[in-house]
Amino acid sequence: MSSVKYLFEPKQVVLIGSSKLREKVGMTSPHLFTNVVYNMRKYFKGKIIIVDINEKTLKDRFEGTKPELAVIMLPPNLSLQQAQKCADYGVKALVMITGGFKNHQRQQLVQMRGDYDIRILGPNTIMGVVNTANGLNTTFERGLMPPKGNIAVISQSGGVGACLLDWACFYEVGVSKFAFMGDKVDVNDVDLLEYFNQDPKTKVVCLYMEGVENGRKFIETAKTVVEKKPILAVKGGVTKEAAQRALSHTASMAGKDEVFDAALRKAGIIRVEDLEELLNAAIALSKQPPLKGDNIAIVSNVGGPAILAADAVAKNGLKLARLSESTKKEIETRYPGVDASNPVDMIADAKAERFATVLRLVLADSNVDGVMVINMLKSTFFEPKDALVVAKTVKKFSGKPVVDVPAGGEDYNRIHKTLGKSSLPLYNLPEKAARALKALRLYAKVTKK
Amino acid sequence: MSSVKYLFEPKQVVLIGSSKLREKVGMTSPHLFTNVVYNMRKYFKGKIIIVDINEKTLKDRFEGTKPELAVIMLPPNLSLQQAQKCADYGVKALVMITGGFKNHQRQQLVQMRGDYDIRILGPNTIMGVVNTANGLNTTFERGLMPPKGNIAVISQSGGVGACLLDWACFYEVGVSKFAFMGDKVDVNDVDLLEYFNQDPKTKVVCLYMEGVENGRKFIETAKTVVEKKPILAVKGGVTKEAAQRALSHTASMAGKDEVFDAALRKAGIIRVEDLEELLNAAIALSKQPPLKGDNIAIVSNVGGPAILAADAVAKNGLKLARLSESTKKEIETRYPGVDASNPVDMIADAKAERFATVLRLVLADSNVDGVMVINMLKSTFFEPKDALVVAKTVKKFSGKPVVDVPAGGEDYNRIHKTLGKSSLPLYNLPEKAARALKALRLYAKVTKK
Repeated sequence: MSSVKYLFEPKQVVLIGSSKLREKVGMTSPHLFTNVVYNMRKYFKGKIIIVDINEKTLKDRFEGTKPELAVIMLPPNLSLQQAQKCADYGVKALVMITGGFKNHQRQQLVQMRGDYDIRILGPNTIMGVVNTANGLNTTFERGLMPPKGNIAVISQSGGVGACLLDWACFYEVGVSKFAFMGDKVDVNDVDLLEYFNQDPKTKVVCLYMEGVENGRKFIETAKTVVEKKPILAVKGGVTKEAAQRALSHTASMAGKDEVFDAALRKAGIIRVEDLEELLNAAIALSKQPPLKGDNIAIVSNVGGPAILAADAVAKNGLKLARLSESTKKEIETRYPGVDASNPVDMIADAKAERFATVLRLVLADSNVDGVMVINMLKSTFFEPKDALVVAKTVKKFSGKPVVDVPAGGEDYNRIHKTLGKSSLPLYNLPEKAARALKALRLYAKVTKK
Repeated sequence: MSSVKYLFEPKQVVLIGSSKLREKVGMTSPHLFTNVVYNMRKYFKGKIIIVDINEKTLKDRFEGTKPELAVIMLPPNLSLQQAQKCADYGVKALVMITGGFKNHQRQQLVQMRGDYDIRILGPNTIMGVVNTANGLNTTFERGLMPPKGNIAVISQSGGVGACLLDWACFYEVGVSKFAFMGDKVDVNDVDLLEYFNQDPKTKVVCLYMEGVENGRKFIETAKTVVEKKPILAVKGGVTKEAAQRALSHTASMAGKDEVFDAALRKAGIIRVEDLEELLNAAIALSKQPPLKGDNIAIVSNVGGPAILAADAVAKNGLKLARLSESTKKEIETRYPGVDASNPVDMIADAKAERFATVLRLVLADSNVDGVMVINMLKSTFFEPKDALVVAKTVKKFSGKPVVDVPAGGEDYNRIHKTLGKSSLPLYNLPEKAARALKALRLYAKVTKK
């Protein structure tokens, strides 16, 4: 039986579009076709076959090849014709980029899935799939490829997926694969979860969902996945009006939010509020161990942001760790003037040595389950090179999670240049780091580890 | 009587530090002193007098000059000596950069304020003041100056202020003035609010507060200010543990959060959750009119993000506007395939013409009080130059606020390069834009306009 594997790991791919057709309202256009071809040529490591339905000579190239995946970029009826041709030819999987399919047209695809050994992603997927390992990239964003990493993203919406893709590229979030589901006539959340569960390149799965069909199967599958890999989800269509919109957007029944929320909890899926929090939590889960208790130490070179951090820790259901007397005494003896009550304000002149020592003492304290480090550059004497020592110290205590906050704009950017590829997750505000710690805590509860 | 005016608008400034002294734990250092001198020389349009307490020749320069403001960067006792000297000499205002003052040392400053015609900012202000109009910049962040604009920032904490300053510089948020209050022995929130109330360069005031003394006076003053200018606030020390920390941080009594919250509401101050929301709301209030009703139209070239936007609008106490039949009909007739139920999904091939037409129709609809535009670049045919038309259309309907969401990383960045200086506020996620609309709505309620 065919498998969604061919959506991500084909050896040969046929790209089917038109160099002339342009829908008045819709995605079919020479521009889109050209850009998908460009991206595939630039990144894909397998063989590419290009079929321009307006060029007889190019059309002929289809014969004599063995494409496992076809990417179809045409208006609904022409897309269906080409899909049929592919199914007959023995293609294993289809990515249907364009939208605007009516119900009876979607039904034809459902029928095809039943009649042939073929899997179908879409229609209305808009962006299709990305696999950073083999360079498969069916998006029409010319020259856009996220950095390699272990976060997989499943998005029902092309627009939301594009936003996550853009975010991942711009902020250098390491990604294994992207899948944009669109109308979900065949391949759905369950299929993709099953695939990512066994994908060695994927450690964390991010979901953007508007609705889910076959809820019981979804919950069962998710339960299996979360034993090995955390799943994070953002739900669109939470309010009544938005839910109505989701129905016409991707033909999803959104359902009541409380029911949905309970289902996600039951499945062990960690629900987050927005797309930034989704990737922020994924970064933490992909880089740090679960948080095994509620007690957080805050180690900072600035006072005010540490207070905001303490508020954020409490607001996210965590606690400020009560440092042991011996830890406090050692810190205060070494650094007169430093108040070692948690949050530990190391004062703005703290550099690598003071950070490393205090962090080491705090991580060794059995009253501490995890740490938020705040190392601002502005208004302090801290420099990006000091941050390397922070990352190194964290690595030695890999049992307890640590998140890092170079709060601000340029400060975040500079530390990210130094530590972006390290195992230390970075956040530009303490509130975001606290939400990441919450996700690490929730995952520890899910796995009971 | 001396006035806080001299903190921001001095004609001559004396910078007092040491080229040799370095505290073991603390901010006094040649590095800090050199950088403040560097910034003042680079930006300040008035006269600068430099007093290095280790250099007799330089010390003499103090005599024969008329500094209105002194910036003191020394350990507590030496700072107090120099402050006394300045007071005797007739200096009108002091910025006390360094911290670590004990209670009796703070008392000496309080006494000085009583005995002389002088105003004192700090101690422990760390960064002092910034005035983008005359180039006054007492921060030690070498070469850092926010762009000119009409947002004033008052921060009790140096670190939080530095984070806001860094954010403003990096994301190009237009600022009139910054004031870092520190320990507040004299100049406090009330003084600064009164000053910003009459400052023609300031349209919006942002506050980071840990506590407030003289609450009644603060509320009265704020009430007067908000009639003309919105005040936004973030409160640190909301939770019990963090509040305790705030006490030792800036000697503030944080008080119960509910009491504080009620007081802010009474004063007409708009409270926000974090520093990003603070500046985001300030940008909206500085660029767009208040939101006179709850009804928001969402106009988007992507489906999923528009659904998230609809959720966010509802979560922030606003409503999805019910577009009039004539508006819907006109949109759907012009653009077959577009569903004009709010949120209006204009489909991913929408460019300037479709955006301008739909935006014009929606803004003219009396059922609409404000608009959130979503114009992503990724997964669409929209280009930054199309955004210029959006900004132009918005300008024609200045009575209703519009916020713009180029959702994502690079997308936001590219549109910001095109529209950052326009009157259209930009946000990288719909949730952030919805919170900005909420602030515009709250301000309309405060002013009953």
